[in-house]
Amino acid sequence: MPDRIDFQTEPSRYRHWRVSYDGPVANLFMDVDENGGLFDGYQLKLNSYDLGVDIELNDVIQRMRFEHPEVKVVVVQSAKPGVFCAGANIRMLGGAAHNHKVNFCKFTNETRNAYEAAEAESGQKYIAAIKGACAGGGYELALACNHIMLTNDSNSSVALPEVPLLAVLPGTGGLTRVTDKRKVRRDRADVFCSTEEGVKGQRAVDWQLVDEIVANSRFDEIVQERAREFAAASDRSDDATGIALGPLNRTFGDDGSVTYSLVEVVADRSGRKATITLKGPDTDTPADMGGFVALGDQAYMLRLARELEDAILHLRLNEMALGLIVFRSQGDPVRVAAHEQLLLDNRDHWLANEVLQYWKRVLKRVDLTSRSMVALVEHGSCFAGVLAELLWACDRSYMMEDEFEGDNRPMATVTLTDANFGPMPMSNGLTRLQTRFLGAPEAVDTAADRTGEALEANAADELGLVTMILDDIDWEDEIRIFLEERASFSPDAMTGMEANLRFAGPETMETRIFGRLTAWQNWIFNRPNAVGADGALQRYGTGRRGDFDMDRV
Amino acid sequence: MPDRIDFQTEPSRYRHWRVSYDGPVANLFMDVDENGGLFDGYQLKLNSYDLGVDIELNDVIQRMRFEHPEVKVVVVQSAKPGVFCAGANIRMLGGAAHNHKVNFCKFTNETRNAYEAAEAESGQKYIAAIKGACAGGGYELALACNHIMLTNDSNSSVALPEVPLLAVLPGTGGLTRVTDKRKVRRDRADVFCSTEEGVKGQRAVDWQLVDEIVANSRFDEIVQERAREFAAASDRSDDATGIALGPLNRTFGDDGSVTYSLVEVVADRSGRKATITLKGPDTDTPADMGGFVALGDQAYMLRLARELEDAILHLRLNEMALGLIVFRSQGDPVRVAAHEQLLLDNRDHWLANEVLQYWKRVLKRVDLTSRSMVALVEHGSCFAGVLAELLWACDRSYMMEDEFEGDNRPMATVTLTDANFGPMPMSNGLTRLQTRFLGAPEAVDTAADRTGEALEANAADELGLVTMILDDIDWEDEIRIFLEERASFSPDAMTGMEANLRFAGPETMETRIFGRLTAWQNWIFNRPNAVGADGALQRYGTGRRGDFDMDRV
Repeated sequence: MPDRIDFQTEPSRYRHWRVSYDGPVANLFMDVDENGGLFDGYQLKLNSYDLGVDIELNDVIQRMRFEHPEVKVVVVQSAKPGVFCAGANIRMLGGAAHNHKVNFCKFTNETRNAYEAAEAESGQKYIAAIKGACAGGGYELALACNHIMLTNDSNSSVALPEVPLLAVLPGTGGLTRVTDKRKVRRDRADVFCSTEEGVKGQRAVDWQLVDEIVANSRFDEIVQERAREFAAASDRSDDATGIALGPLNRTFGDDGSVTYSLVEVVADRSGRKATITLKGPDTDTPADMGGFVALGDQAYMLRLARELEDAILHLRLNEMALGLIVFRSQGDPVRVAAHEQLLLDNRDHWLANEVLQYWKRVLKRVDLTSRSMVALVEHGSCFAGVLAELLWACDRSYMMEDEFEGDNRPMATVTLTDANFGPMPMSNGLTRLQTRFLGAPEAVDTAADRTGEALEANAADELGLVTMILDDIDWEDEIRIFLEERASFSPDAMTGMEANLRFAGPETMETRIFGRLTAWQNWIFNRPNAVGADGALQRYGTGRRGDFDMDRV
Repeated sequence: MPDRIDFQTEPSRYRHWRVSYDGPVANLFMDVDENGGLFDGYQLKLNSYDLGVDIELNDVIQRMRFEHPEVKVVVVQSAKPGVFCAGANIRMLGGAAHNHKVNFCKFTNETRNAYEAAEAESGQKYIAAIKGACAGGGYELALACNHIMLTNDSNSSVALPEVPLLAVLPGTGGLTRVTDKRKVRRDRADVFCSTEEGVKGQRAVDWQLVDEIVANSRFDEIVQERAREFAAASDRSDDATGIALGPLNRTFGDDGSVTYSLVEVVADRSGRKATITLKGPDTDTPADMGGFVALGDQAYMLRLARELEDAILHLRLNEMALGLIVFRSQGDPVRVAAHEQLLLDNRDHWLANEVLQYWKRVLKRVDLTSRSMVALVEHGSCFAGVLAELLWACDRSYMMEDEFEGDNRPMATVTLTDANFGPMPMSNGLTRLQTRFLGAPEAVDTAADRTGEALEANAADELGLVTMILDDIDWEDEIRIFLEERASFSPDAMTGMEANLRFAGPETMETRIFGRLTAWQNWIFNRPNAVGADGALQRYGTGRRGDFDMDRV
């Protein structure tokens, strides 16, 4: 068992996946190493997975976007005979702590969402080619692909056996994608989700569970044919050359702190908080996208996103007792906006698009992080454009007003850019400002009129961009009291409150997965029928069913 | 503590509410009897409530619609000095079993939704007139009103102190209505929901938590003035005379069974199921709405709805181990459709409207009932119009195909009417058929073309109206196997699965309350931080805060 779960990896270290590149088609093979589990106590048989397997998958899809812009279709398939993927490993689930289970599911959901969106965002389409059993999380892996092919033989089926077999839900988007993406008729969904053996052959097509079935003898051939067809139909550029994503420059402290090149995470375990400080650019804006490509993974906007994402994931999984995240920034907001502007001006350049889409995903990870979050807009800070999005991803923000004695940093400002008015939607499909001003949509336009201005405290307050502005007399006490109070509340109540307050307005498949499906799964993950000593997860593999309390709620 | 919770009551038995009628304005006073709790072990101080208080409120609003059509505005207010309502009783919550808590919250949510919708459905508007403290469930009571007035004095405030004080959520729609109905800015909502003492005066208006504040000295006067203004603006008819809702004709058995005039509930505790059989009309269709009014609560369509609702509530709260509800019907579908048609033809008649709106609410209660539900369309059945809605409210349906040996009842049929194509939307705003055919909207039109036909098994199957059709050879075995299998699954997994599969498509405030908010609250209601021996609910009133596990998920 690792001291610290590391979200960074690279292809030479993969134990569970491999990719073969064939021009515009990438064949992604799942071949899980039974003995490569992240923790002790279980074997990853039959292509079952744990968080470690998913960390590699996340790395695959990230590199597919940045290192392999030539790839237009990714074929997800199994390298093991007779089985596509058996889903999340049950013994791992049975042995994991509740908060690990919850964060494992969240990360796997984010990974599914990321490759599901790759087609719309980048013209990179994932298709699932299923031979053999495809059950539970295995079928959920396929459901997030945008085309599902199933071998038409007696051994190949798709199934969501969680409910009958394990007394938990298909919680990695399964129930939601069955009803809302595949639009399976509700009574058929009920039959499907309560049938251990699943559905195969023509019925799987008739019920919209897969897109096509193919005779076993011609399966591999037709899959490659279909992949080439999709590739030919993609409007993705043919002539882009990828950039390499090198290892992050980072140093971990013993106390949960981490130092990156642009991000500093200071852990304060006694205060139950982590402070994340984002630094402004340490390099000039590249002259054009050619210059940006030449910088590769060292370009400010990409490096910052990668470091921020790694920091968030580290805190989520490794530092669960730090219930509060404080966001700070220090740097020149004009330079931040200039770096960002190059990307906004070149959205039709593949790499500019990828970096902006990546920021969208990173900001969504922030929204979905189950910690209380506050932004402090201090003197010398650089909350401009995508960095300003953090103010509205947070539960609250405080901003320094007027001069502070002995503080000669530039006055605290907030700078709006075009990035705040479209390209960074939340999971609900609205921008953070649209969500914030749901009751007063005209406030978004009023704010947009001030794009590009360095807004000081009074202006930011009048526009409704920050929660509270505080002067030198009040700042320290108010912030201290807030932090102490927040750190004293029940973490569970905070989680539930934040999950409800953060996503007003419309719902999407994503908000339903994280809001509704996840909440019910978390509830079930606390119920003895699933996780108790005689519950279904503990008894799995013993030949005895769970011993259930049969009362309904 | 009662052997059986009874959802029927009438004004002469009220212990907690009273109403004074003043032409088009009804003044509804909350005056909870401290010693009138439904269970032992707590006192209902400061207008705090338990399920018994809410059963009376549900009765009030139901009678307001049927017995008092002259009422256009209902003013919800407190008869106790210094306090509006302190919310759900904490000691009751601390002592109640998990499944009672969950069902208590569901019922109170349904009650809030019912009076919130009264304005749109019937032109009957609820306003909250708040003097004194209005906290937690008290403010949620107000939030479901469509106009909130607050006394502007130092003792009157609105608050949602659940999170800081009790480590649970404002789960009776509070968080959802703050963000989605009142559209409070998200960071202000965060401040509000984590501040025990709440918000008063001008800030309550500025933050959109109330609609107006009124000086204490003129409060009562202005409230009545506002009520008369709203009444004058209502387009509700002036000349309707109500009908009396008499006691239900029913007999309870010792085993959970109940016999009503048109509804028979047979409990089978060893099989963990209840069978609800609905009977077709035992009376002729009234010639016109005059005849319907003359029949009053004995009219078939109203009587059936009342009996079905009572049966569902009885099973939910009193028979939690019956995890499966089987719906049957017996009677003449032509006569059912004829009774219904009178209402559909007279939707502008106040009572026809009320009965149809009531059916909508009853069917929503069915949708939201946390039990596996199956409809059996047998020979001799009468699933027509609103009764056919039950087929799609259920998780599955089975229909008899062809003749059965020795069964000389009329052939099983399903009859669609106009009631299936608009007036009975689910919580998600779609009809049950629209939800069912989300992936094939044209199927709704195809079905609509067959309105009025008595569709036998093959036709119903082709139109996708039933899950499965079975002939004499298979029927008994298939049904038995399904019932036995379903009754063996973990009730929690069933609850979570059904909550996700039943509501595909768009979301509304209602689906968010029952789907997202409720799921997170249920999760918290299982967490030691809230409900453990050292949790916040148990320690409430002891002067000691909960002893929390500070890890986040």
